[in-house]
Amino acid sequence: MSDWREFGPDTLSPPLRAALVVFARHGYHGASIRMIAEEAGLSVPGLYHHYRSKQAILAAVVDTAMAEMLEHTGAAVEDAGSHPVARFENLVECLARFHMARRDQAFVASTEMRSMDPGVRAHHIAQRDSQQAMLEEAIRAGVDSGDFACEHPEDAARAISSLCVSISSWYRPDGPLTRDDVVARHLYFARGMVGAARAGGVADPSPSPS
Amino acid sequence: MSDWREFGPDTLSPPLRAALVVFARHGYHGASIRMIAEEAGLSVPGLYHHYRSKQAILAAVVDTAMAEMLEHTGAAVEDAGSHPVARFENLVECLARFHMARRDQAFVASTEMRSMDPGVRAHHIAQRDSQQAMLEEAIRAGVDSGDFACEHPEDAARAISSLCVSISSWYRPDGPLTRDDVVARHLYFARGMVGAARAGGVADPSPSPS
Repeated sequence: MSDWREFGPDTLSPPLRAALVVFARHGYHGASIRMIAEEAGLSVPGLYHHYRSKQAILAAVVDTAMAEMLEHTGAAVEDAGSHPVARFENLVECLARFHMARRDQAFVASTEMRSMDPGVRAHHIAQRDSQQAMLEEAIRAGVDSGDFACEHPEDAARAISSLCVSISSWYRPDGPLTRDDVVARHLYFARGMVGAARAGGVADPSPSPS
Repeated sequence: MSDWREFGPDTLSPPLRAALVVFARHGYHGASIRMIAEEAGLSVPGLYHHYRSKQAILAAVVDTAMAEMLEHTGAAVEDAGSHPVARFENLVECLARFHMARRDQAFVASTEMRSMDPGVRAHHIAQRDSQQAMLEEAIRAGVDSGDFACEHPEDAARAISSLCVSISSWYRPDGPLTRDDVVARHLYFARGMVGAARAGGVADPSPSPS
């Protein structure tokens, strides 16, 4: 990966891109194989040639997005080196950028959990949890290093992930905020949520528990 | 209202409660009037006696929840008196408690925006915006009083609202966290997001912009 901050054109195959459009517009249960085939410019048998069911299509759409997110996340962590604050900040920035670049995938993944078959859902949750575990681990490392004051790293990791997921519900590329604006604001929020030393170099003056 | 922190049994009529169950399970587009009537123990004409369309049912489900939230929010603000920090914290606590007590309504309201007719959606967004405006106003007042250090009150209000909405997607009454635990953690996160003086009474030492 050349740059984890860059998300180019999506990596969906044309039938999956068509399915994403239909799912985002009508919801999984409101979408039919016929609607997806029409959107993709395929016949229904042609679509079935690629995917055996609507459920398999949903699974592939979500898995493509999650695999891409995890690939960028891994590169963001590697880029940060060993410092926990840099690792934390790269993880938050990566999550925020992913949810701006892949709004529809993120929306479908988070709203259609109820529509996933148990195995598909379990796979999706495992991917999401592995991302969240990296964030939690970075927060714990920052607490250990004295950079963060946060009593509940697991809850903070979930909250920060949820906050970044929510970006996909309001961010618009033609809106007033640039992607860099959104990243900067979410880094500020995320630092505050883990009790990071304040910007400006003033360390948290409260005594560490011992 | 006796206590804005208390959310008793929901205030939905039986047909609306049945519709909520069906919408939450199948999505708006996957739900039919017949499914809702069956869930409610009514005939289809019996259901149409109460509501003229599936869209009218969605509008009523969402409006009932939003009206309840705004009623509790108003009481929470009144209870806080004139201090901006108390007003901010009551607003956050009220949002968090609402999203634990009314998980399904909140989920349907946030995921079915796409399914609302323009007038219904505009009404819903106006209700949501009025809640967010109260939060933004409390943040601005806290900045003016020197209690908060936050450069982007509007973005902070949206982020805190989004964070509280997300509680409805993971909170379970039988999970490890009590409602009071969830409130306490979200107050900590929200204070951090607006750059509140740290708990323990240590004021933010950074100079105020002038």
